[in-house]
Amino acid sequence: MDLTSIKNPSFLKSMNHEQLGELSQEIRSFLIEKLSVTGGHIGPNLGVVELTIALHKIFDSPKDKIIWDVGHQAYVHKILTGRADQFDTLRQFKGLCGFPKRIESEHDVWETGHSSTSLSAAMGMAAARDIKKEKNHVIPVIGDGALTGGMALEALNHIGDANTDMIVILNDNEMSIAPNVGAIHSVLGRMRTANKYNKAKEELEYLLKKIPAVGGKLASTAERVKDSLKYLLVSGVFFEELGFTYLGPIDGHDFEDLEQNLQYAKKMKGPVLVHVITKKGKGFKPAEEDKIGTWHGTGPYKMETGDFVKASAKGPSWSGLIAETVRKVARRDDRVVAITPAMPVGSKLEGFASEFPERMFDVGIAEQHAATMAAGMAADGMKPFLAIYSTFLQRAYDQVLHDIARQNLNVFIGIDRSGLVGADGETHQGVFDIAFLRHMPNMVIMMPKDENEGQHMVHTAISYDDGPIALRYPRGNGIGVPLDKELHHIPIGSWEVLREGKDAVILTFGTTIQMAFEAAEVLSMRGIEVEIVNARFIKPLDEEMMHSIMKRNVPIITIEEAVLAGGFGSAVLEFANDHSYQNAVIDRMGIPDQFIEHGSVDQLLEEIGFTTTSLIERVEENIRPKQPDGSPVL
Amino acid sequence: MDLTSIKNPSFLKSMNHEQLGELSQEIRSFLIEKLSVTGGHIGPNLGVVELTIALHKIFDSPKDKIIWDVGHQAYVHKILTGRADQFDTLRQFKGLCGFPKRIESEHDVWETGHSSTSLSAAMGMAAARDIKKEKNHVIPVIGDGALTGGMALEALNHIGDANTDMIVILNDNEMSIAPNVGAIHSVLGRMRTANKYNKAKEELEYLLKKIPAVGGKLASTAERVKDSLKYLLVSGVFFEELGFTYLGPIDGHDFEDLEQNLQYAKKMKGPVLVHVITKKGKGFKPAEEDKIGTWHGTGPYKMETGDFVKASAKGPSWSGLIAETVRKVARRDDRVVAITPAMPVGSKLEGFASEFPERMFDVGIAEQHAATMAAGMAADGMKPFLAIYSTFLQRAYDQVLHDIARQNLNVFIGIDRSGLVGADGETHQGVFDIAFLRHMPNMVIMMPKDENEGQHMVHTAISYDDGPIALRYPRGNGIGVPLDKELHHIPIGSWEVLREGKDAVILTFGTTIQMAFEAAEVLSMRGIEVEIVNARFIKPLDEEMMHSIMKRNVPIITIEEAVLAGGFGSAVLEFANDHSYQNAVIDRMGIPDQFIEHGSVDQLLEEIGFTTTSLIERVEENIRPKQPDGSPVL
Repeated sequence: MDLTSIKNPSFLKSMNHEQLGELSQEIRSFLIEKLSVTGGHIGPNLGVVELTIALHKIFDSPKDKIIWDVGHQAYVHKILTGRADQFDTLRQFKGLCGFPKRIESEHDVWETGHSSTSLSAAMGMAAARDIKKEKNHVIPVIGDGALTGGMALEALNHIGDANTDMIVILNDNEMSIAPNVGAIHSVLGRMRTANKYNKAKEELEYLLKKIPAVGGKLASTAERVKDSLKYLLVSGVFFEELGFTYLGPIDGHDFEDLEQNLQYAKKMKGPVLVHVITKKGKGFKPAEEDKIGTWHGTGPYKMETGDFVKASAKGPSWSGLIAETVRKVARRDDRVVAITPAMPVGSKLEGFASEFPERMFDVGIAEQHAATMAAGMAADGMKPFLAIYSTFLQRAYDQVLHDIARQNLNVFIGIDRSGLVGADGETHQGVFDIAFLRHMPNMVIMMPKDENEGQHMVHTAISYDDGPIALRYPRGNGIGVPLDKELHHIPIGSWEVLREGKDAVILTFGTTIQMAFEAAEVLSMRGIEVEIVNARFIKPLDEEMMHSIMKRNVPIITIEEAVLAGGFGSAVLEFANDHSYQNAVIDRMGIPDQFIEHGSVDQLLEEIGFTTTSLIERVEENIRPKQPDGSPVL
Repeated sequence: MDLTSIKNPSFLKSMNHEQLGELSQEIRSFLIEKLSVTGGHIGPNLGVVELTIALHKIFDSPKDKIIWDVGHQAYVHKILTGRADQFDTLRQFKGLCGFPKRIESEHDVWETGHSSTSLSAAMGMAAARDIKKEKNHVIPVIGDGALTGGMALEALNHIGDANTDMIVILNDNEMSIAPNVGAIHSVLGRMRTANKYNKAKEELEYLLKKIPAVGGKLASTAERVKDSLKYLLVSGVFFEELGFTYLGPIDGHDFEDLEQNLQYAKKMKGPVLVHVITKKGKGFKPAEEDKIGTWHGTGPYKMETGDFVKASAKGPSWSGLIAETVRKVARRDDRVVAITPAMPVGSKLEGFASEFPERMFDVGIAEQHAATMAAGMAADGMKPFLAIYSTFLQRAYDQVLHDIARQNLNVFIGIDRSGLVGADGETHQGVFDIAFLRHMPNMVIMMPKDENEGQHMVHTAISYDDGPIALRYPRGNGIGVPLDKELHHIPIGSWEVLREGKDAVILTFGTTIQMAFEAAEVLSMRGIEVEIVNARFIKPLDEEMMHSIMKRNVPIITIEEAVLAGGFGSAVLEFANDHSYQNAVIDRMGIPDQFIEHGSVDQLLEEIGFTTTSLIERVEENIRPKQPDGSPVL
């Protein structure tokens, strides 16, 4: 069928399993083709084709609420709810979002991006339904990886106890973004092989019947044992203990198995957990054979071969550069350990892990635990490198504040994907970290101008013994500068002048330094000489240099690819204010008070007026003489 | 014995159970007496007297690391490690901290205050030990309430899988700060009554032996069943499933039971969970009989009767005022529900709960789940009131940002205990919330000047339909103003002038307004007339009023009992900067970049120079004419 003709999922109701099978194949071909051009989360979506079809056949969305955890697996859902025609724009500027989006469709009842929120959201919606005495199903779909995030476990604990009607679909594909870790994962493993136990149960019942009637004590014991065995042997004991009815494990690619169990779940009272086994990447060989998460989310690829269309990059990937430098330093400093919450691949820690397996800790999707475990190691004299994406560090805000910063422990936080990240959109932009770390006492925050400075900052962070230190680095690749052989220490709080200029001073750091240089070149041709300062320490500021700049009484422009409210520019304002530089002209360029959607980083920056052209204009505007009331002298 | 003569816990090694029993009595009497004067966490500490003694007898602190979760139950530990003589200063300014504190003693290896961090810290220390190939025990002590915090569950999942040597003491007193909720709590309940299952196990083994040898299939089934039963019937199946060896339940007030099990745990490999049943408040009748958490932490009381020494209060408690107003509004608006993470008593929601049991949700210690569940309810048309202490809202930073603010959902966040909280100290000060909420797009933040405005703000928050809205209110009681009968709406972003004055403008909100008035009175006598503005909306600012103030070109003083970095004063600086009021004199008073310890709020404010006297000086300093370089005209 023509997938773009689908308006809503009602057509599924009348389809038989054979037809659904054909539809599945069409959807798979569609996804493999479309995503080869746009890139996207191919693996997770190929894994849930039948599951999504079955959910939309058995339930009535949007009356019944299907809640996609993380949300990167909602492409099939988007196709079935009338958005196939928009897949050419997937994850592109003003195009179809890669995650559920409420303004796109009434079928997207909950927006996600970060993991492990679906059960809490579902509990909220189910509780609202019960208060309003409405009748509808609430169906969170959560992966085995996301299930071990703390908030999902908090929610399981509450839901099981509250005994709320809800159908939790556990989409168990044996890996999240990387192979899963943790005890709950092992529990699931045992459940997957539970068939033999089911068989054992039958045998046992036969066996128990054979026991001679001994009356009294033993008979009642046998009864109780039978109950207990039912409890244990149907394999879902872990969830049953938490108050859920457990159904499964079922084959997530078999419509009969799916329909039967979903229909059954639909009739049950209280919380039900349907354990569905799926294969990530199913139907696309390179993705099916993926063992480490390469095909979780990708850029464009060649459909025929599965080869990636490599974007040309001048320098090494930032994640790789930082992780490999940590590895280098770890060779001579055995206090160095690495901790990642489920991102060994994304954070490029495979090399470190293979060289120092006993010093590498992948704790699964568990940012809070990762941060406080790092604090625990630091309290015992180690030098933990906590590699975490900026957006996910948000999950560990309190752990960084209460456990790391408050105890002033030597944790080195590697903030990967700082700044705008592009196609993943508003749930993933790494633009809040400066604003939320800067007010934490004891915290040092830095960002390098290039890869060479980046590697020296790794050395600096590991040799720093006065508390926590955070190193921000962007998504993507460096600019390709030569790397020094020897690593050296950069004095904490020291900035450097990259270009001298008498007319105005630009204070910036990281990726936006390049923009400053482009602007300076144009301005120079217009007779305006701009000074560019590498404000590589966002906290503490280089106070000596700040005083000398302030005293020159020239306009200052701060640039940060991060939120303006409470950000680096505000730190500069605060400094000027604290030291009574009341006449300073400071112009702050950064992210305004709004969430930034998906698109290429350049498009997004253009959209918010964060461009070289705008910078040039702002410098010119600022150096124009002003009257006392601030209006320009004409 | 004289408890103040104790230098370290080594004296315990040679004591027999009778002597330990006597010591327990002495410690109990000591605590009941001392805390009757200072106040403190009496209930939790009376519950762990024997457990703490046993831990210090069996293990060698500080080589063996005892980690107290939350840390409010570490008083006995402080006595046994040489700090009994400081109990007269408990929780007082420059006195003994109510929580573990590394600078106080080498036996305090980890600092806490917030719950559920101990397992992650322990995993960090155990991993560090193993890398360094050292030999010592790591012993986190966690309550059944704290166990259901997400990060503790994340840690359990990791520890069970990593198979790290560790002895987790589960201190199960059947309540945390309030009676516990959640499925895991029910699991623990079943374990507590597990003796009968142990008996059943014996019976079953006898029974299984009786089964005739049928050979082959059935025999092996029987074997497998025996294994499974062992697994199930020793009662710790939940923890066993997660990879722990389970010991218990044991009587936490019986030295023989404690020693035997701790000695056994000490010899075991891998993670062990020792399930200890204790009675909160044991040995002090009023505390023993407490069913709702009144005796969790208290102020001074009369030892003989258990009556509290009431501090004189002019107005109602802030928590009570806000909760009761929510209740009032809920009578005519059935969309209103209340959610609390384990704080029904602290947040004074008992009245709401009894009137609207089906609209009240105590989710246990689970701030993340609480926030996102509120988002889920709001997504479905409800009006959730999320009551949460400022310091604990830190735990839900990402949930507020990613789930509530990003989806612009109508969640009403009641931020209780905003500002300095006093005796609980640096882990509990509510001073970060402005800085961490202000940079979230869509967020409205307000704080009332008095109880009457507080109740109108509740009405305002509930009738607000454009996204999240946060209402800060302080710890303690209001000032005793009359309350209007009818509630009215306060326009979002509107400030009010409370006192007119031509020489300077003070912008402040909440509790510090009183200070502004005190200063204004003194200044008036000196001929300086200060305007006082109730900046009740911290976000958005009252832009119209800001423009009119800025145009008057008089000094502006901002006051906030919150961190300066990125706070309200910075918002004012940003406004002035964004609108090119380059000559504005703005002076920001607030909390500097440091953690604030325990003491009375007045002492703490005095310590950081946050006083009426200092405010008067700053106003005078600011209105003194300045030369262009900022130096005063002499």
